[in-house]
Amino acid sequence: MEFSEHIKTANVEDVVLQQPLHPPSRGTLCITGHHLLFSHREEQDSSGQVLLLLRNIDAIEKSSVENLSGYLGPFTNVVNSKRASGSSGTIIIKCKDLFVLQLDIPGMEQCLNIAQSIETLSCLDCVADMYPFFYRPCDAIFCDQWGLSNPEKHYTEMEELHERWRLSTVNRDYSVCVSYPTAVIVPKEISDDTLKKVAKFRQGGRFPVLCYYHRKNGMVIMRSGQPLTGANRKRCKEDERLLQAVIEDSDKGYIIDMRSAQQAQQARMTGGGFESKSCYNSWRRLHRHMERGKTLQESLIKLVEACADKSHNMGRWLSKLENSKWLSHVQTALSTAGLLVECLERDGHSVLIHDSDGIDSTLLVSTLAQLIMDPSCRTLEGFLGLLEREFVQAGHPFQQRCAHSAFSHARLQQESPVFLLMLDCVWQIWRQFPLALGFSEALLLRLATEAYASNYGTFLSNSDMERHAAQVKDKTQCLFRALLKPREREQYTNQLYEHTELAIWPSVHPQSLQLWRGFFLRWTQQTRHLEEVQQEIRNMVIESGKTALSF
Amino acid sequence: MEFSEHIKTANVEDVVLQQPLHPPSRGTLCITGHHLLFSHREEQDSSGQVLLLLRNIDAIEKSSVENLSGYLGPFTNVVNSKRASGSSGTIIIKCKDLFVLQLDIPGMEQCLNIAQSIETLSCLDCVADMYPFFYRPCDAIFCDQWGLSNPEKHYTEMEELHERWRLSTVNRDYSVCVSYPTAVIVPKEISDDTLKKVAKFRQGGRFPVLCYYHRKNGMVIMRSGQPLTGANRKRCKEDERLLQAVIEDSDKGYIIDMRSAQQAQQARMTGGGFESKSCYNSWRRLHRHMERGKTLQESLIKLVEACADKSHNMGRWLSKLENSKWLSHVQTALSTAGLLVECLERDGHSVLIHDSDGIDSTLLVSTLAQLIMDPSCRTLEGFLGLLEREFVQAGHPFQQRCAHSAFSHARLQQESPVFLLMLDCVWQIWRQFPLALGFSEALLLRLATEAYASNYGTFLSNSDMERHAAQVKDKTQCLFRALLKPREREQYTNQLYEHTELAIWPSVHPQSLQLWRGFFLRWTQQTRHLEEVQQEIRNMVIESGKTALSF
Repeated sequence: MEFSEHIKTANVEDVVLQQPLHPPSRGTLCITGHHLLFSHREEQDSSGQVLLLLRNIDAIEKSSVENLSGYLGPFTNVVNSKRASGSSGTIIIKCKDLFVLQLDIPGMEQCLNIAQSIETLSCLDCVADMYPFFYRPCDAIFCDQWGLSNPEKHYTEMEELHERWRLSTVNRDYSVCVSYPTAVIVPKEISDDTLKKVAKFRQGGRFPVLCYYHRKNGMVIMRSGQPLTGANRKRCKEDERLLQAVIEDSDKGYIIDMRSAQQAQQARMTGGGFESKSCYNSWRRLHRHMERGKTLQESLIKLVEACADKSHNMGRWLSKLENSKWLSHVQTALSTAGLLVECLERDGHSVLIHDSDGIDSTLLVSTLAQLIMDPSCRTLEGFLGLLEREFVQAGHPFQQRCAHSAFSHARLQQESPVFLLMLDCVWQIWRQFPLALGFSEALLLRLATEAYASNYGTFLSNSDMERHAAQVKDKTQCLFRALLKPREREQYTNQLYEHTELAIWPSVHPQSLQLWRGFFLRWTQQTRHLEEVQQEIRNMVIESGKTALSF
Repeated sequence: MEFSEHIKTANVEDVVLQQPLHPPSRGTLCITGHHLLFSHREEQDSSGQVLLLLRNIDAIEKSSVENLSGYLGPFTNVVNSKRASGSSGTIIIKCKDLFVLQLDIPGMEQCLNIAQSIETLSCLDCVADMYPFFYRPCDAIFCDQWGLSNPEKHYTEMEELHERWRLSTVNRDYSVCVSYPTAVIVPKEISDDTLKKVAKFRQGGRFPVLCYYHRKNGMVIMRSGQPLTGANRKRCKEDERLLQAVIEDSDKGYIIDMRSAQQAQQARMTGGGFESKSCYNSWRRLHRHMERGKTLQESLIKLVEACADKSHNMGRWLSKLENSKWLSHVQTALSTAGLLVECLERDGHSVLIHDSDGIDSTLLVSTLAQLIMDPSCRTLEGFLGLLEREFVQAGHPFQQRCAHSAFSHARLQQESPVFLLMLDCVWQIWRQFPLALGFSEALLLRLATEAYASNYGTFLSNSDMERHAAQVKDKTQCLFRALLKPREREQYTNQLYEHTELAIWPSVHPQSLQLWRGFFLRWTQQTRHLEEVQQEIRNMVIESGKTALSF
């Protein structure tokens, strides 16, 4: 693709940039195939630049300078324009990471050209055109291994598993399940042929696979898509046998179905269904309804809209916050994860979780449960590894879910902030157990941004299969590896971290959960002060580390 | 008074205590004239004791053991009682600092005796019977000076004042104003005789006095009661002259009236009023309505009730939080203080503030404004000194306002959580500027508890006059002095403090203000974790301090 055909005006002088927490400034605007670059007139070095991935832009609004005040949003200062009205235009740029900036551009035609370029280039559909394929950091390394681990390596390391579980490569060419990786862990006694039959009985071919082994008691978390029992209550002996093999000698297991009992019933009308008591009599089914898809996306939109409300009315704010229901979704996700941990750790039984297609709330809840139970998931490496396994490899469709964020006016398609909701839940845990997680809030914020627009290939595409087809692993850089480089690692480490073997049970009382201000109000003064504190603590630790070393 | 006549049962064995964050425990209960003491059976040292000031008890509820579950509130574990039902009773004790504990007492009669003793002894009216008159810490010092400073000393230290301001002792015998201290600062050219006349024209005799001198521009904050213009628009030439003397050469001053314009008008019907434009033409009047008295108390009650809601319903919690309006009061207080600072620091003019009687929101706002503007008020000593001047000496009626807290079923009299609201506002500032205040959240929590029930005499009585009559300064210990002793000082110092000369403008956007969880949810697990973090940071600083010293 030739990006240049979409860029009628590449450079504009004398543009005024207004962004939160900064005074307005005048400089040069430049549009490239993947970036918007603003260079302040006064400053020559890169500190005087704003570099924005066009992919990060969620919505743009155009207006003439006259009727601008209503739009201003986060800006309190308006630069006096020395240009005559009508001869210039204004673009408000709203980013997927909630950053909002405003550009006053001389010349209406130039302004429209810029806007059009942004509109086109920010929504490229073709993966191969996206910036990760062009990004070459100076310390770029293309080594054999992309990512932190892979299913093979993960299996090899988990020696306790080897007696009862095996690595199946039945999906090596993605023909059994398009959203699974090439290798998955299944009960040893279940053959690949059986798996193929089970895959036909589970939505999206997502037959039950192991996603977590609890060393303390040998119990596991399995995840899958819903069983396709349909209106006729179809059975699948192989599926029943697979689940029986999971339990083995244990008296029972739990199925956590993240739909209400009624929804699960209704799913039968469209070919879906649930595991009936009569066919799976060793399994006890629990229903916990969790919102997904459009409902979650609308909740995010409402919340961000509430956060931007400038009415100075406390009642209105709290009422809008409530009305967005975002914190209710946080609560439900955490309490469902808590339920899973209760079944597995307290009650001592294995658990299968799924919703309908098993690529959204299923992954969210299994991620949170592992973080709560397993100390090895709470270090910086451990957490990134967990996300790699449970979101990237497990087939969360990032490209669809993160196509747009809270500002876009485009009709909702497959967008849903499942990954963001997971990060928010992790933040709640982090806040309740400030010493128990090895990473900082800054990491969660970075991940929230990267999921929507990134230099890296990690969150590209919707599945391992698609990434393979696009040669993501050969042609792009891996975010998780980059985050573990020494300089980044220092920034994302929780300096107060203390390892604990115990499960960290988050409180899910409404009173215990809070708005994630660090993200949702990140472009305000307040957040900057909290960052100062983090920096102060970091300095203190480094300082005391140095003195300790000098002895 | 003989306390013993109110204690029919002084000791009970085999009592079960349930308190938040602890497992239930069995031991001996003892009631004395001022304390409830529970000693765990297993532990002999004082760590196994719970010592509670009876004065701290806001409400008690009795029930028989059978129908207890509905009451349990914060407790998740119930001890199996080995006693037959009916032969024992349960008392739930709800404290003014929001601590709730439960006692299961064998023997219904003993239980009733205990309850009755608590009910009587927790509400003693006579100041001289209160515990501060009996409290003798091992390091007690009765020196000449009680408190951190006094008006005379304060005036002497402020040399910049001496040219235009004088210390008046017109109130040396409390005959001019019952709620003022014996000495106040007034314009030099205003004689004591004039002050006496002005006092008759101001509610409660509270003639305008200086409470803050802004070194940067020489402007001042004055405070007073409302002018008693009444329905006939009475004037007082002396009052007008006093205010004119405050302005001197400056073109104008601001009056911030913490009532709506309508309320100020209505006040004339009951003898009150406001400074009319025609009589005070150099002063510009601004009205900012702030709730006080019963409305504030009811807001607190609703908020605490909301915090205790166990329904696990996020929507319900947020709606109750909104409905309590507590955060709206926080917002109004902070924004009114911000307005004051704007008038004084940005606009560069002196300000007179008052509501009707000038002993509640007036003091709240003047305290916050000084904290925002003046770096010397932001150290530990500075802040305690500020509270001493603006609340204790300035005549905030602590005994009336803090007679009951959020749990009492007694009919509301003069209770109002003005001091608590001030602490909450300071906490909001502290949270927004984590490096700018020299004291910790722990200090604010301690002060919130001490205001309602204390070993110290600092918050006793309603005014300097009453404290003088009760010989508080001779017979009790001073809290502020105790808080500055080395061990306490370490605990209450903000280890991240960095002095800044600038005003610290708090954001009053609804989105920027939060529930003070450290206080309102203080007896939950969550808060304990936050304390761990503080402790961790403290250790780190002490550690790095030690290594620094050892060089």
